[in-house]
Amino acid sequence: MPKRTKRSKKSGLPPGTLVHIGEKKIERARITLIDYDEGHFQEKEIKRIEESFPFKDTPTITWINIDGIHDVEVIEKLGKHFNLHPLLLEDIVSTEQRPKLEDFDSYMFIVLKMLFYDKQDNEVKAEQVSLILGSNFVISFQESEGDVFEPVRERIRNKKGRIRKMGSDYLAYALMDAIVDSYFLILEKVGERIEDIEEELVTNPTTETLHEIHKLKRDMIILRKSVWPLREVISGMERAGSQLIKKSTTIYLRDVYDHTIQVIDTVETFRDMLSGMLDIYLSSISNRMSEVMKVLTIIATIFIPLTFIAGVYGMNFRYMPELEQPWAYPAVWFVMLVIAVLMFLYFRRKRWL
Amino acid sequence: MPKRTKRSKKSGLPPGTLVHIGEKKIERARITLIDYDEGHFQEKEIKRIEESFPFKDTPTITWINIDGIHDVEVIEKLGKHFNLHPLLLEDIVSTEQRPKLEDFDSYMFIVLKMLFYDKQDNEVKAEQVSLILGSNFVISFQESEGDVFEPVRERIRNKKGRIRKMGSDYLAYALMDAIVDSYFLILEKVGERIEDIEEELVTNPTTETLHEIHKLKRDMIILRKSVWPLREVISGMERAGSQLIKKSTTIYLRDVYDHTIQVIDTVETFRDMLSGMLDIYLSSISNRMSEVMKVLTIIATIFIPLTFIAGVYGMNFRYMPELEQPWAYPAVWFVMLVIAVLMFLYFRRKRWL
Amino acid sequence: MPKRTKRSKKSGLPPGTLVHIGEKKIERARITLIDYDEGHFQEKEIKRIEESFPFKDTPTITWINIDGIHDVEVIEKLGKHFNLHPLLLEDIVSTEQRPKLEDFDSYMFIVLKMLFYDKQDNEVKAEQVSLILGSNFVISFQESEGDVFEPVRERIRNKKGRIRKMGSDYLAYALMDAIVDSYFLILEKVGERIEDIEEELVTNPTTETLHEIHKLKRDMIILRKSVWPLREVISGMERAGSQLIKKSTTIYLRDVYDHTIQVIDTVETFRDMLSGMLDIYLSSISNRMSEVMKVLTIIATIFIPLTFIAGVYGMNFRYMPELEQPWAYPAVWFVMLVIAVLMFLYFRRKRWL
Amino acid sequence: MPKRTKRSKKSGLPPGTLVHIGEKKIERARITLIDYDEGHFQEKEIKRIEESFPFKDTPTITWINIDGIHDVEVIEKLGKHFNLHPLLLEDIVSTEQRPKLEDFDSYMFIVLKMLFYDKQDNEVKAEQVSLILGSNFVISFQESEGDVFEPVRERIRNKKGRIRKMGSDYLAYALMDAIVDSYFLILEKVGERIEDIEEELVTNPTTETLHEIHKLKRDMIILRKSVWPLREVISGMERAGSQLIKKSTTIYLRDVYDHTIQVIDTVETFRDMLSGMLDIYLSSISNRMSEVMKVLTIIATIFIPLTFIAGVYGMNFRYMPELEQPWAYPAVWFVMLVIAVLMFLYFRRKRWL
Amino acid sequence: MPKRTKRSKKSGLPPGTLVHIGEKKIERARITLIDYDEGHFQEKEIKRIEESFPFKDTPTITWINIDGIHDVEVIEKLGKHFNLHPLLLEDIVSTEQRPKLEDFDSYMFIVLKMLFYDKQDNEVKAEQVSLILGSNFVISFQESEGDVFEPVRERIRNKKGRIRKMGSDYLAYALMDAIVDSYFLILEKVGERIEDIEEELVTNPTTETLHEIHKLKRDMIILRKSVWPLREVISGMERAGSQLIKKSTTIYLRDVYDHTIQVIDTVETFRDMLSGMLDIYLSSISNRMSEVMKVLTIIATIFIPLTFIAGVYGMNFRYMPELEQPWAYPAVWFVMLVIAVLMFLYFRRKRWL
Repeated sequence: MPKRTKRSKKSGLPPGTLVHIGEKKIERARITLIDYDEGHFQEKEIKRIEESFPFKDTPTITWINIDGIHDVEVIEKLGKHFNLHPLLLEDIVSTEQRPKLEDFDSYMFIVLKMLFYDKQDNEVKAEQVSLILGSNFVISFQESEGDVFEPVRERIRNKKGRIRKMGSDYLAYALMDAIVDSYFLILEKVGERIEDIEEELVTNPTTETLHEIHKLKRDMIILRKSVWPLREVISGMERAGSQLIKKSTTIYLRDVYDHTIQVIDTVETFRDMLSGMLDIYLSSISNRMSEVMKVLTIIATIFIPLTFIAGVYGMNFRYMPELEQPWAYPAVWFVMLVIAVLMFLYFRRKRWL
Repeated sequence: MPKRTKRSKKSGLPPGTLVHIGEKKIERARITLIDYDEGHFQEKEIKRIEESFPFKDTPTITWINIDGIHDVEVIEKLGKHFNLHPLLLEDIVSTEQRPKLEDFDSYMFIVLKMLFYDKQDNEVKAEQVSLILGSNFVISFQESEGDVFEPVRERIRNKKGRIRKMGSDYLAYALMDAIVDSYFLILEKVGERIEDIEEELVTNPTTETLHEIHKLKRDMIILRKSVWPLREVISGMERAGSQLIKKSTTIYLRDVYDHTIQVIDTVETFRDMLSGMLDIYLSSISNRMSEVMKVLTIIATIFIPLTFIAGVYGMNFRYMPELEQPWAYPAVWFVMLVIAVLMFLYFRRKRWL
Repeated sequence: MPKRTKRSKKSGLPPGTLVHIGEKKIERARITLIDYDEGHFQEKEIKRIEESFPFKDTPTITWINIDGIHDVEVIEKLGKHFNLHPLLLEDIVSTEQRPKLEDFDSYMFIVLKMLFYDKQDNEVKAEQVSLILGSNFVISFQESEGDVFEPVRERIRNKKGRIRKMGSDYLAYALMDAIVDSYFLILEKVGERIEDIEEELVTNPTTETLHEIHKLKRDMIILRKSVWPLREVISGMERAGSQLIKKSTTIYLRDVYDHTIQVIDTVETFRDMLSGMLDIYLSSISNRMSEVMKVLTIIATIFIPLTFIAGVYGMNFRYMPELEQPWAYPAVWFVMLVIAVLMFLYFRRKRWL
Repeated sequence: MPKRTKRSKKSGLPPGTLVHIGEKKIERARITLIDYDEGHFQEKEIKRIEESFPFKDTPTITWINIDGIHDVEVIEKLGKHFNLHPLLLEDIVSTEQRPKLEDFDSYMFIVLKMLFYDKQDNEVKAEQVSLILGSNFVISFQESEGDVFEPVRERIRNKKGRIRKMGSDYLAYALMDAIVDSYFLILEKVGERIEDIEEELVTNPTTETLHEIHKLKRDMIILRKSVWPLREVISGMERAGSQLIKKSTTIYLRDVYDHTIQVIDTVETFRDMLSGMLDIYLSSISNRMSEVMKVLTIIATIFIPLTFIAGVYGMNFRYMPELEQPWAYPAVWFVMLVIAVLMFLYFRRKRWL
Repeated sequence: MPKRTKRSKKSGLPPGTLVHIGEKKIERARITLIDYDEGHFQEKEIKRIEESFPFKDTPTITWINIDGIHDVEVIEKLGKHFNLHPLLLEDIVSTEQRPKLEDFDSYMFIVLKMLFYDKQDNEVKAEQVSLILGSNFVISFQESEGDVFEPVRERIRNKKGRIRKMGSDYLAYALMDAIVDSYFLILEKVGERIEDIEEELVTNPTTETLHEIHKLKRDMIILRKSVWPLREVISGMERAGSQLIKKSTTIYLRDVYDHTIQVIDTVETFRDMLSGMLDIYLSSISNRMSEVMKVLTIIATIFIPLTFIAGVYGMNFRYMPELEQPWAYPAVWFVMLVIAVLMFLYFRRKRWL
C-alpha cells in the first residue's frame, strides 16, 4: 500500500471541497496548451491558467494538459470558468479514484489509471489521469510530468494520421489509447520476468524466487484493479449516445475496448501462471526436504547398527569369549559389511537410491 | 462472533413485536433535535420524545437523532406519531440487520452499518445506524453516542457547504456519506497493519504474525458484509424514482456510490493480499524447517561415519593388528579427514551449503 | 449422508405414485385441526382425515396439520378431496425435495426444510415441511411431531398479534416465519461452537478440533442447501401476483425474505471463518513439527561432534601420544565446551533458541 | 478419459457425414417397435428398419428403440424416411455430444447421457441416448442394450399409470424421467461409499483412501458434466412453445426439472464433502508424521547426551582422576538418571508425552 | 510466454498503422486463389496480390488465402482494393488478437486462433487466422503455411458435400469448422498424456511428473483463452441478422457452436482433473517422506538405547562390579534383546510396521 493514502484528512468536510489526496509528486503544476484544427496549430506552455480561458469559445480543438494536481487553486479556477461540477473537481484532486466515466451532458468526465514500472522500487505504480471532454476541448490532468502523451502531441504537430482532421472526441480517444498502450509495455516486462522465474524454478528455487512471485502477483492485482473498470468506461462511452462522441470515432473506441480486453485476458493468464508457479515452488521445497531426509536416513540407518556392534565389543566385561578369538575381529568386519550391503539393497528396492 | 446474538429470545413472538436485540451499549437513550432551513437554525437535546412531535408538521428540515436503541418505548411512541410500519420499528431495535433500503412511499427506511476500530479488542466492530427519510425530516438511530455525525452537525451549524440550502434528502445523503467516509479510516489503519505484517514476514515470521493475518482476514469479512449490500442500497435510492429524492441530490448519491465501490475494491484487494501473505507465511515455515533439517543432516551424516570408525578401534579384541602399528593412529585421523572433506564437497554440490 | 435415502425403490414407477421416501420417524400420523376467524376458534385432534373435509367449504380459516407423512393413504384421500395434483402429493411424501414453490392457481404448494440440532448425533438435521395454501385453508405436513409451530398456535388461541384478523396467506407466512426463526437458533449454537474452537486452536489444537471444524463445515453445507432455494421461494410468492397472497401480507413476506438473506449471509461468514480456522489448524501442526525438529536438531548437533571426540580417545591404539599427557583430559573437556558454546551461539543467531 | 475418443478420424470430412465415434459396444443393432394407443398395443422386434416405416403415418403412438448406433446404414435409412436433418444424424452416431435440445419444428431432437456404475472398472460410465420426438412417434437410440427403459415398456404393456392415454410427448417425458431416475441410483451408491470412506478416514487412512476420494471426485465431474446441461434441455422443452409438447405434459416436465436440480444439488454437496475429506486426509498424514517425529526426538534427545557421557568415561587418557574413585560409577548413573528425568519433564511440559 | 510479443514497438503510432507484430514464421507470403461455383472451378497460386483483384466483381465464390502476414504491403493493397477498414488491417497483422467478430455491414471480419501441437517444444502453440467474409468472397490470413484448410480445398475440388452449391458464408463456416475440428485433435493428445500421467502418479511420481502436469495446465490456459471468446464469435454470427449469413447456413453455425461448447467443457474437465492430479502428487510426496521418516525412526529408536548400554559398559571406571561377573555379558545381550523386542511390539501396535 502506498503511504500517501491520507484520505482521512478529508473526512467530515462537505462534498465538493477540494483537498489534494496523494503524494505531491512535482514541485509546481505545469500547464501546456495545444490548439489546432486541420490547418492551424499552436502549442505553448502557460504560467497562469487564466491564459487558457479565451480558447474555450474558439471553434478550434483545444487541449489543456495540467501536470501536477496538488495546486488546488488552479483546478478551482478552471472548474469555475469551464462550469465543471464541484464533485468532479474533487475527484480530480483525490488520486484514489477508480477508472470511471461520468456524463454531464455538455461534457464528459473520464478517470483513468496510468501505470508505469518504477525501477527503483521494482514495482508497478499507478498514477491517476483525468480527462474532461467537451465539444471543442479536452482537459487532461496528470499527477506528474509523464511522457506517455508525447507521441500524441507529436502526431498533432506533424499531422500524422487523421488526428488533425477529427474532433475533440478523437483526441480523447488518442489519449486513452496511449494509456492503454502503456499497459502492454508493463505486461511485456512482467512476461519477461515470469519467463526468468520459470527457469529459476527449475534450476534453483530460493526464497527470493518466492518473493518475486508474490511481488508479481501483487502487481497483477494492481493492474487488474486499474483495467477492469476501464472496460465499462469505454463501452459506456460507446453506448452513451452522447453527441460528444461522433459515430466515426466509435469504431476507434471499439479498438481500445478490444485492447483493454486483451490486457485483462493477459492479466488473468499471468495470474493463473503465477499461481501455478507458486505450486511448483512449494512442491520443490517439499521435494528437496524429502531428499535431505532420505540422505540422512540412509546414512543414519546404515551406520547406527554398525556403531552399535562396535560399541558392544568395546565393552569391558572380563568374560567376553569372542574377544579372545583370533578370527573374531575379521568376522565382525564381515558381519558389518553384510549389514551395510543388505541395507543398501533395501534402499535400492525402495527406490531411495 | 459477538456474544450479544441473542435473537433466540425473540423466536416465536408475533412479527412487529419490539424486542431489543444486541448489547445495551449506553445507559439511557439520548435524543437530540436539529431544526433548520436556509435562514433558521435550532439545536437542542430533548428529554421526552414527545417534545419532537410538533416539528413533524413544520416546513423546516428536522433531524432527530436517537443514540441508544434499547429504550423500546421511545421508539414505539415515535413510530406511532410518525406513522411508521411496525416491522420497520422491529428492524431498528434488532441490531443484526444487513444494510437495506425500504421504500414506504411517504418515507424511506435505510439501515447502515457504522464501523469503528475497537482498540481494546484490537478488532473492527460494527454498529447499526437506521435512517428514516421523510419529506421534511430525517430520524437517525444509533446504538451508542458516536461522533461520526459531528462534522455534519458542524456544517449545519456553520452553514458550510450547501447543506442548509438543500432538503432532507441531502441531509440523509450527508449522514450516509459520513458513514462511508469512516470506512476509509478503517481501511487506512488496516493498510498500515498490512504493511507492518509484510515487513515482519520477511524479517521474522512468528505464530503471532499468523494470528494477525487471520484477524485482519476476519475484519475484512465483516467489512465486506457491511459494505456489499450498501451498494444496492445507494443505487436503489438513485433508481427508486421516489419523489423524496430530488434530482439535484442524485449526483451526490452517485458520489457515495463511487466511494462504496472504492471501499469494496480495496477490501477485495486486501483480501487477495492477505491470502498471498498467508502463503508466504506457510512457505517460510516450510523453508525454515527445511533449513533446520539440512543442518541436522549435514552434522549427522559427517560425524556418524567418523564415530563409527572411532567405535571400531575402541573394540577390545585381542588380535587387532592395526592397533599395534605406530602409523595407525595418524592414518585413522587422515581417513576421517578425507571422509569429512568428501562429505563436505558432496553437500556443496547439492547446494546444501 | 443419512441412511434413509432409498429413493431407488421408487425408480421405474409411473409419476404420481405415492411412495414414502425417508425414515419413518413416528408411529402413526397425527392430525390436528384448527379452525378460526376473528371471533371464532376451534382446535381438535382428529382420528380420520375425513373429519376435516367439511371445513373445506366454510368461510373460516382452517389449518390442518399432519405430523408423519408415511401414511400414504391419508395423504391420498386428502389429495382427492382437496383436488391436489398427484405429483404434488408425491413430493409431500418423498422427503428429499429441495425448498420450492409451485403455483397451481387455486392453491400454492410450498416445500421447506425445518432444521434442528440433534444433540445425540451432535449434528444438524433437516426435516421436510410442506405447506398447501388455499384461499381459506392451510395444510401443513411434517415428518414428526415438532414444536416449532407451537408459538403460532399459541398466538391463534390467545389472539396475540394480528393473526386472527388476517387470512390464510398470513397463516402460511407465520408458519414460514417460525421455520426461518428456528434457523437463527441453530446459527447461534454454531456461533458458540465456533468461538469455543477458536480458543482451542490457540491453546491446544488436537485432531478432535479438526474433526469438529469439519463437522461444522458440513453442517453449513446442509444449512446452505436448505436456505438458498428458500430465497427464491419467498421472493416467488411475493412476485407471483397470485390472488392467494393479499397485498397487506407482502410486506411480511419481505420481512421473512430479509431474515433469509441474513441467514445466508451468516452461513457464508461462518464458512469463511471455518476455512480460516482450518488454515490455522494446519499451520499450527506445521509449526509444532518444526519446533520438534528444532529441539532434535539442537540436541543432536551439539552432542554428535562431542560424542565423536570422546569416541576418538576411546580408541585402543598403542601409540596415541595425547593419551599420556596429564593436561590432555582437561584439554579435551575444554575443546568440547568450546564446541558446545559455538554451536549454542550459532543457533542463537539463527533464532532457533 | 475413455479410450474411444477417436473423433480425429472424422476431422476434415464434410458436415453431415455419418461416422460412428465411440466404442462399438454390441455386435449388431437391435430394433424394437412398440405401437399403442389407449385401446391397442403391439410390440415386436424387427430385423430391417424398413419394417418400421409404415407406422410413421398411423395415428397411434409408435416408439422405435434402436440399441447400437454403430450401424450407420440403419440410421441413414431411418433419417431419409423420417426426413431428419443430416447434422442430427451425425450427432446421434457420435457419442461425445453433451446433452442438448434442438427444435426442428416438426420434430424435436434430444440428446441425454445415461449413467451407470461399471462394477468391473469401479467407475461411473456414461452412455449417449438420443430421442427424436415427433407428433405421433418417438425414436430412441442407445449405445447398447440397456434395461433402464424396461419399466416404461412395462407400464405401456400393463396400462399402468396414464401413459397409454397420453401422447408421444408424454412417452418422451417418461423416457427422460427413467434416465434421471437412474442418476439417483448412482448418487445413492456414491453416498454410501462416501460414508465408508469417512469412517476409514477416522480409523485408518491409507493411500488407497486417497485414490478412492479422487476417483469419486472424478465421478462427480462426469456426473456434473452430464447433468448440468440437462437443466437447460428440460427447461428449454417447457418454454419452447412447440406444439409437440402439450400443456398437460408441462407439469411433468417441471417434475423432471426439479429432480435434475436435486441431482445437481447433491452432486455439488458431494463435491464439497469430498474436498473436505481430502483436507482431513492430508492433515491426518501431517499429524501422523508429526507423531513419528516426536517419538524419534524424544528417544534421541534423551539418549544422545547419556551416550556422550558414557563415551567420555570410555576414553583412555592415563590421567583421568574420576575413574579411580569408587563412588564415580554410581555417581555417573545418578547424573544420567537426573538428565533423563529432566528431559522427560521437559517433554511433558511441552505436551509431547 | 512466446518471445515474439514485441507490441511495444508499435506504442505511440497512430491507429491504423500497419506494423507486423509477432514472429516472422515463413520467408515470403504465399497467396493462393480458388474461384468456384457449382459448375466452375479454378485454383491457382498467384505472385502479386493485384492478380486477385478482378475476381472481386465476378458472381462466383472467390477464396483468397494468404499464408504469412508479415508482408504488410500486400495486405495494404488488398485492403485498399477491397475497401477494408484500416483498423481491421492492423488487427490482421498483429498476432495477439483474441478471437472476435466485427460486422462492417458489407463484410464481416473474424479472428480465430488455430492451435497445433509443437512436438519440438512439446507445447501447444497458437497461430492467428483472420477471415474476411464478403457477399461473394472469403479472404483468409494465416501466419504460416498450414494444412488445416487442405480438407476444405479437397472438398471444393472434388465437389464433396454441399460446399460447391452454397455461398461464401458456407465457405467461411467450413474454414471455422476445420479450425474447431483441429482443437479436438489437441484434446485427444492431451487426454492421452493425462492418462499416462495418471498411471505414473500411482506407480512412480517424480519431479518430472509435476512439471508435466503444470505444462498441461498451462496448455489448458492457452486453449481456454482461444476457445472461450470463440463461443461469442459464433453465436454473434448466428444472431447478427446480417444478410451475409443465409438462413440455411445458420444450422451449420449452430453445429460449430455445439462443438465449441464441447471443447470448452472438455478443457474445464481436464483442468479439474489436472488439479486433482496435483493434489495426488503433493500428497504422495508427503506420504513418501512420512515413510522415510518411519524407517529412520524405527532404526534409530531401536539402536540408540542399545548403543547407550554398550557405551556404559565401555567406560573405564576402576570399580564397576558388573564387569567382573561371568554372567554379566550374556545378561546385557538379553536385556538388549528385550528392549529391541519391546520397541518392535510398540511400533507394531502403532501400525508403523
